[in-house]
Amino acid sequence: MVRSILLRGFDQKIAERIEEHMVNQRISFLRPFVLTKVEKIQEGSPGKLRVTALSSDGKETFEGEFNTVLLAIGREACTRNIGLDHVGVKYNPRTGKVLVDEEDRTNVGHIFAIGDVQKGRLDLTPVAVQAGRLLARRLYGRQRTKCDYINVPTMLFTSMEYGACGVSEERASQMYGEENIEVYHSNFWPLEWTVPGRDKYACYAKVICHIPDSERVVGVHVLGPNAGEIVQGFAVALRCGLTKEQLDSTIGIHPVCAEVLTDLTVTQRASGATVVKGTC
Amino acid sequence: MVRSILLRGFDQKIAERIEEHMVNQRISFLRPFVLTKVEKIQEGSPGKLRVTALSSDGKETFEGEFNTVLLAIGREACTRNIGLDHVGVKYNPRTGKVLVDEEDRTNVGHIFAIGDVQKGRLDLTPVAVQAGRLLARRLYGRQRTKCDYINVPTMLFTSMEYGACGVSEERASQMYGEENIEVYHSNFWPLEWTVPGRDKYACYAKVICHIPDSERVVGVHVLGPNAGEIVQGFAVALRCGLTKEQLDSTIGIHPVCAEVLTDLTVTQRASGATVVKGTC
Repeated sequence: MVRSILLRGFDQKIAERIEEHMVNQRISFLRPFVLTKVEKIQEGSPGKLRVTALSSDGKETFEGEFNTVLLAIGREACTRNIGLDHVGVKYNPRTGKVLVDEEDRTNVGHIFAIGDVQKGRLDLTPVAVQAGRLLARRLYGRQRTKCDYINVPTMLFTSMEYGACGVSEERASQMYGEENIEVYHSNFWPLEWTVPGRDKYACYAKVICHIPDSERVVGVHVLGPNAGEIVQGFAVALRCGLTKEQLDSTIGIHPVCAEVLTDLTVTQRASGATVVKGTC
Repeated sequence: MVRSILLRGFDQKIAERIEEHMVNQRISFLRPFVLTKVEKIQEGSPGKLRVTALSSDGKETFEGEFNTVLLAIGREACTRNIGLDHVGVKYNPRTGKVLVDEEDRTNVGHIFAIGDVQKGRLDLTPVAVQAGRLLARRLYGRQRTKCDYINVPTMLFTSMEYGACGVSEERASQMYGEENIEVYHSNFWPLEWTVPGRDKYACYAKVICHIPDSERVVGVHVLGPNAGEIVQGFAVALRCGLTKEQLDSTIGIHPVCAEVLTDLTVTQRASGATVVKGTC
């Protein structure tokens, strides 16, 4: 059951592919629907749960029985009882999230906030770790490096792994204008999949470039096995200001999936249809 | 059976770890030994092969019976009958390898050689592909990018995968002097290995930096599952001139193996002993 859009904030074309893959694996989606009630069933099938839901437009209802109900409803920051009001730190009273600038400073100059309590940042452990480490170095180690909240590599442990770093296609369009971005993409077919003849079109790689800035790479997206392992090194390259030319002049490792990223020639502008590149 | 050293040209400390891992998996090594004879057995165990070998110092002999004998003895270039002598191109008469400069040019100005026929270069398909592509662009596309034969990512499909890019520790010491390189290293324990309690010390990551050049990363070495997938992106980052500081300020992806490379703090100089970093 999805309240509105699937994987908000993530690249939506990739999110569509993930949904498609899950549907092919016979996972049913109900959307857009909102949960209204979960009850323990007493008679008939004891131990089961009865779920009632309402479509977002309020016109349809849903009822079903399930063994397990898992809710992924986000999180809120427990900042209400730590005295932020006394020191004047601004925060969102509904979510508990604290407003910070790009140096992780709150509106009160000597108070900083890092990690998941920050408003508008990704709720990821390694981000909190890195932000804390860099803040300590800025405060006490005479360093200046700020935490890079844009090029944060993330991955989704969906049945088809999704790894990404940098911005989504939607965000790149907003930031730079659609005419200023070039999207290179390709399907790829992992070597291990060729023997059992698994789906040729399930794995996908996409690189988003900012044309006027020497085709600087602003987003890397990989859908396939070990996507997280693949994306980590590309996240490092994005920190170094990677351009498409540098990407193209890197030698591929044969026959791993990541190789496909060094050999992207088809743009989405030229053709929505992608070629399938084998890794062997 | 190994004639001399294992995995010549590769980082020798990593090669030792690979040997150790294979020995732990009950693969027997015989070294340094050289094969002298392979005979089909006629009587007793027909179909089997009798192998005779001599130790490199000539003092010991070995004899054994095997079902299969596989020889990995390198390759030579078939350049003898294509008329190189007529046009005056220099090549090694024993190996057939052709001498080229950094622009892939032979001693005859208008004749180029790419791929495995080049002397002293890595015999890898993607290197040949990339070199050919870049040569075509230099000759007819007004580009200048030369093939980077140093930062070639490679991987070994040993039972424990080994992926590397840039130079080995030995090569870095030769090139820059031992006092000018810093080697950061760590063992890591893949998340999937924690449940069955597999060997904590089998997986290993190493990054070699050139200290006077802003701790520029000159070698990345990974021993562990999916090492090839991991190293590809780091190879891209090396193309961008990656420094240790940029590596450290990249956010890790939790909980993948590649994360360990963004969090290397222990130097080999400080301690030969490595810590084990879990990924969860």
